Amino acid sequence: MKRLLLASTSTVYGGTYLSYLQEELTDFFAGIDEILFIPYARPSGITHDEYTAIAQQGFEKIQKRVVGLHTFADPKAALAQAKAIFTGGGNTFLLVTRLYELGLMSILREVVAGGTPYMGTSAGSNIAGQTMQTTNDMPIIYPPSFQTLGAVPFNINPHYLDPDPHSKHKGETRETRIKEFHKFNDIPVIGLREGSWLRITDDQIELKGNLTARVFLKEQPPYETTDLSPVYP
Amino acid sequence: MKRLLLASTSTVYGGTYLSYLQEELTDFFAGIDEILFIPYARPSGITHDEYTAIAQQGFEKIQKRVVGLHTFADPKAALAQAKAIFTGGGNTFLLVTRLYELGLMSILREVVAGGTPYMGTSAGSNIAGQTMQTTNDMPIIYPPSFQTLGAVPFNINPHYLDPDPHSKHKGETRETRIKEFHKFNDIPVIGLREGSWLRITDDQIELKGNLTARVFLKEQPPYETTDLSPVYP
Repeated sequence: MKRLLLASTSTVYGGTYLSYLQEELTDFFAGIDEILFIPYARPSGITHDEYTAIAQQGFEKIQKRVVGLHTFADPKAALAQAKAIFTGGGNTFLLVTRLYELGLMSILREVVAGGTPYMGTSAGSNIAGQTMQTTNDMPIIYPPSFQTLGAVPFNINPHYLDPDPHSKHKGETRETRIKEFHKFNDIPVIGLREGSWLRITDDQIELKGNLTARVFLKEQPPYETTDLSPVYP
Repeated sequence: MKRLLLASTSTVYGGTYLSYLQEELTDFFAGIDEILFIPYARPSGITHDEYTAIAQQGFEKIQKRVVGLHTFADPKAALAQAKAIFTGGGNTFLLVTRLYELGLMSILREVVAGGTPYMGTSAGSNIAGQTMQTTNDMPIIYPPSFQTLGAVPFNINPHYLDPDPHSKHKGETRETRIKEFHKFNDIPVIGLREGSWLRITDDQIELKGNLTARVFLKEQPPYETTDLSPVYP
């Protein structure tokens, strides 16, 4: 039993927080009234309380209560007992560091494998992969490990961006970075564009939204697809 | 005695490898016939030999010999005896990992502090800072530490990019990432645009090229400047 909803981004251009996902969220969290929110990625360094308030607002329209994991005296027990979990985006290095420091990474791995519905956006989706090594984030803090939940047999590159053919900038493109990753790692990488999300139920995977995903396999040319079943499970 | 040349990029739009820096290189390496090249950052995963050949080509017009550090049986001794050092760009996580694995980080720190002329581009400039934590690179490998040379009292963000006011992309801007860095770190950050480089001689710092740099100090609004003396030494 495994239930995952992994989105590239929380917000699309012109929308508000989670607005483009409302229909999907209603379905994914059907029958669940309370969602445990993991706020540790702190986008732009906002506080855990501020971030939880934003998440709460995103779920208001579909009448779900959102409770911040940071408000529990015993976050391990809170995770173990959660009806559903949502990890928001922000800085992946920070998120992973806090999950390890608080002894939560292994518990989160277990409850997700055990069937607790897990939703992630951006950094929260990135950690569902084998490692955080295809994050786009800046290493603002040194994590004890790059290993993450391994809830899927690939890594996710959220906010995937196509090279801009008109750019005069000489920094590496996203594709170049992922190719560099594959010089040292075998894990498949899914480039998930903003507006795309993955819905996973046990051994079924579905790419949703209106875009293709870009699949990167070691020593093979990347390709566009809507069918991710070859890389899952 | 300290002599540093720290460039944002090796190549600017429309130019070839190091072409825009030829005049500066002639001056910086005056009287030096051989440059020790550190190829470990391996851009796009090219080999150490391939990368050294590119560097050699970049120095051909000014008649300098470039020797790859990877070709020495005893790279520690090679570093210690180098007349001048150039570290090329690529992946900073990889560069830092290899420097630590080979026991070279502390030696490089010493020889640079001791006056061996040091040139860096991109990742090679990033490691001149206090830590590698303002790199733009993907964490394709797990380094033993994020600490770097500390040859300057700040961190460098190479390939600094201004936010695109027309972008519909919701990934974090460079400025947002650096602000996140300052939630957890005090080190000043210099956003060094492509086409800019720093020339440092003992206690003097000069920003060169035709652009301003963007200076980020903890809990202060970032500002544009051509005078970096307030952050050095």
